[in-house]
Amino acid sequence: MDKGILVVISGFSGAGKGTVIKKLLSESDEYCLSVSMTTRNPRPGEVDGKDYFFVTREKFEQTIAEGGLIEHAQFVGNYYGTPRAYVEQKINEGKNVILEIEIQGAMNIKKLYPESVLLFITPPTGEELERRLKGRGTETEDVIAGRLSRASEESEGIGEYDYIVVNDDLDKCVTDVMETIRSAKRKPERQMDFIEELRKGLEIYHR
Amino acid sequence: MDKGILVVISGFSGAGKGTVIKKLLSESDEYCLSVSMTTRNPRPGEVDGKDYFFVTREKFEQTIAEGGLIEHAQFVGNYYGTPRAYVEQKINEGKNVILEIEIQGAMNIKKLYPESVLLFITPPTGEELERRLKGRGTETEDVIAGRLSRASEESEGIGEYDYIVVNDDLDKCVTDVMETIRSAKRKPERQMDFIEELRKGLEIYHR
Repeated sequence: MDKGILVVISGFSGAGKGTVIKKLLSESDEYCLSVSMTTRNPRPGEVDGKDYFFVTREKFEQTIAEGGLIEHAQFVGNYYGTPRAYVEQKINEGKNVILEIEIQGAMNIKKLYPESVLLFITPPTGEELERRLKGRGTETEDVIAGRLSRASEESEGIGEYDYIVVNDDLDKCVTDVMETIRSAKRKPERQMDFIEELRKGLEIYHR
Repeated sequence: MDKGILVVISGFSGAGKGTVIKKLLSESDEYCLSVSMTTRNPRPGEVDGKDYFFVTREKFEQTIAEGGLIEHAQFVGNYYGTPRAYVEQKINEGKNVILEIEIQGAMNIKKLYPESVLLFITPPTGEELERRLKGRGTETEDVIAGRLSRASEESEGIGEYDYIVVNDDLDKCVTDVMETIRSAKRKPERQMDFIEELRKGLEIYHR
């Protein structure tokens, strides 16, 4: 079976990444979401192994020491990280594993996994980003201004991604992500087994 | 308008390249075929500027001297070549220009146009290639054996292509080619204008 791809998805806050990922997961069983490890307590309804791997601080630090996390960070006194074993197992099972992560983390992933595919999801324009952030109606003007300012900074790093996917229409964006990942699988470096088989099958004709 | 892509298509003799290209052209007006220049005489029904640019030997050699051909070769005493001006004009008009060419020529194109996209079209197996070549019923056993032997040699170069597209089902193969080219357009190096616009649009929010 072909190995899956580690799909890193980034995008400005308000770009609609979460919605795109949710729809992608519901439409195709070729994708799964990376499950993070954390030391924070489960909230009501959260399931261990599905929402997060909930572990003790001791276990988390042991996992770091063993090189068991692809990346990790601390946030409000708790650890969050991406378990290597889970990601690698799913990829070996042929699943494309989605990792939603910000730019700096994405660049670190690319160094560790050069065969990963980095997607940056963006609204068509800055104005549209502002419109979406305001449309949520859940954040103060100041928080929105902060997100837009951050987007301006983040836009400097877009060129480092493998692909830019515009999220104008949700369905089209999900289709675009899927076809981009299917295309990435057609690169020869991901088709080594197929090429080897093809060569072997043609060898008998050589004269 | 976004520039088109120079799409180089290669594949074993018998892989079905010609059929794939014909269907691609009939299904999408985003593609056009590169028209070759030749010194051979037009056959009945062939149209100058559509099937070929028919020119004199003198004109052909002048075009070579002026650097007006991307590549050229001699075959049975006649020149054949790919006019640079035609290809560049169509790409600037936003068309994806298809160039059907063998492996060595494809590698030369990649050196001259690093932004071209090289597709290798192959049947799923060597056996299937043999079946297709025999199924044509137009060639002697010896010619078929020669083509299969050549395919075995050519299979060594497949890894140099950007993408490998398996032609098992014609419709799927055409779809795969189209989505591969659409994906290639999502690379940041082809989205410089979009990125520039997006950055400018976000700059006003920076604080």
